[in-house]
Amino acid sequence: VRPFRIVVAGHGEFAAALLASAELIAGPIEDAGAVGLGPDDAPEAYGERLREVVGSGPCLVLADLAGGTPANVALVVGRDRRDVVVVAGATLGMLLEAATGLTSLDDAPIDGLVAAARSGVVRQDDRIRSPRSV
Amino acid sequence: VRPFRIVVAGHGEFAAALLASAELIAGPIEDAGAVGLGPDDAPEAYGERLREVVGSGPCLVLADLAGGTPANVALVVGRDRRDVVVVAGATLGMLLEAATGLTSLDDAPIDGLVAAARSGVVRQDDRIRSPRSV
Repeated sequence: VRPFRIVVAGHGEFAAALLASAELIAGPIEDAGAVGLGPDDAPEAYGERLREVVGSGPCLVLADLAGGTPANVALVVGRDRRDVVVVAGATLGMLLEAATGLTSLDDAPIDGLVAAARSGVVRQDDRIRSPRSV
Repeated sequence: VRPFRIVVAGHGEFAAALLASAELIAGPIEDAGAVGLGPDDAPEAYGERLREVVGSGPCLVLADLAGGTPANVALVVGRDRRDVVVVAGATLGMLLEAATGLTSLDDAPIDGLVAAARSGVVRQDDRIRSPRSV
């Protein structure tokens, strides 16, 4: 059993869709949630919903965009809580790795999660093997 | 006017949700599309839909996951086309940057897009300022 909860925080439908797409690939992801910021949501109301879904135990929050409202509100929710880790720039690979490979919220595994997610951002078309402008 | 189309390719609702969430932040994104792989889609059928949305002109495809079917099919769609660039590991920040900041599909700006997206994958909670295990 994974010893922490995973919550995706994002603008609009992104959060729920990221979680649903990860479940398409990996099957049901237990102890996970998604909280989307609607276009008319006040940050305070969003924070209340996010705080409720994060809960009182260890939690990894994956936010869609550094500097965006979901990430900023997640930082407020996690303030003074050493058991809430917030990583922004959520990718599908990051969520899959968090759900299936990550075993703790200690600093080293979180650093590994960030590094793996970064290396999953990669150009893949054939032109990189024979570069030339378009 | 941006001289290339942007297409998000992903599992399930991820592609459409990423585009919609970017538009929540940046307003309408012209000349862009999203093609989601359904749980029962054959890769060939997905490829036909993706090829149609990519179209015949220059196109940047942002795929959700390196090694996933949407990314792999995008590589097939872009094969032998130097005007189709495929970047996997899509993030909201990457799409926003592609839609509002990227001005060509030449190698250097694409490298810049990838680097910016990677640096947008970042841990943000306060604990990184006073590391200690949970």
